[in-house]
Amino acid sequence: MPTKDLREKTISSVAVFQGRLLDVRRDDVELPDGGHTVREYIRHPGAAVMVPMREDGKLIFLRQFRYALDRVMVELPAGKLDPGEDPETTARRELAEETGYTCETLVRLGLIHPCIGYSDEEIVVYLAQGLERREAEAEVDEFVEPFELELDEALGWIEEGKITDVKTIIALYWTERYLRGEWGK
Amino acid sequence: MPTKDLREKTISSVAVFQGRLLDVRRDDVELPDGGHTVREYIRHPGAAVMVPMREDGKLIFLRQFRYALDRVMVELPAGKLDPGEDPETTARRELAEETGYTCETLVRLGLIHPCIGYSDEEIVVYLAQGLERREAEAEVDEFVEPFELELDEALGWIEEGKITDVKTIIALYWTERYLRGEWGK
Repeated sequence: MPTKDLREKTISSVAVFQGRLLDVRRDDVELPDGGHTVREYIRHPGAAVMVPMREDGKLIFLRQFRYALDRVMVELPAGKLDPGEDPETTARRELAEETGYTCETLVRLGLIHPCIGYSDEEIVVYLAQGLERREAEAEVDEFVEPFELELDEALGWIEEGKITDVKTIIALYWTERYLRGEWGK
Repeated sequence: MPTKDLREKTISSVAVFQGRLLDVRRDDVELPDGGHTVREYIRHPGAAVMVPMREDGKLIFLRQFRYALDRVMVELPAGKLDPGEDPETTARRELAEETGYTCETLVRLGLIHPCIGYSDEEIVVYLAQGLERREAEAEVDEFVEPFELELDEALGWIEEGKITDVKTIIALYWTERYLRGEWGK
């Protein structure tokens, strides 16, 4: 536990940009020493990411163009929570929409904060097992490209710098530990 | 490599909020199917995070209040790049400012993208060795609280959900692999 008083108090808060995706706020705050400063940050509804693992051991990944980075990224399926939605519901919905699979079981591996300097986003990480291919493949999101990879190969891609997305990296490491019986004992 | 054309083209770009910290843009873009949409995102200068490891094996962590999350987080020292700055320079500067240590060597473990949905931020991850305590402790940032932890204990804190910051989690896993000789062979 901290021995210092590190907390900051909100003096006032204002929405400086509310777009289609981003909700940006600027608050005036009081620092622990009594001084004042400004904090700017994104309000985010939260998200879920999952490692879809088939019976044959293959994992389902996506290639997805990420505009802010101007590149195609290798990622696990993920998505934002709808208002009031349980992250497990989000996970099942996004899995179906992005890969065309449904899953029987979701194991909650943990929770991460991707962007603590300027966002309140949190992401719940799941392992999805008991996958079943849906009939209608045409409904799959047309702007992502699903593909399969073994866990060991994916771990190699992290080391080679071919996977740099944090939620994907952590979900894979936690899955590795979980499958070895070294996680959430 | 993708077989689909996943790229999006910029039609126009506008700065919708430029604050003290955040630079928020909104672009009109053309989708691969010819449709149009809007992309909103943060422009970020990039950052460096480091695992400061002392000769006795102890790692230096920080407790830091994160306003967006309204809580004190357990993190490794990190900081944003100044304009034109090399990430290694950032790492050395932040290490001194936040912990009072200088380091002899920095091993570059890799690069991560924390927030691919709405930010172009990238973070370079280092292991910092050959630590030396500076004389002047009074210069250390007064709003962070440094403390020491063994690597094994820190890995346990990830599993217990006491460490949820993504850059810290990944830096610790890469350090574990590096020290075992399993990283960047």
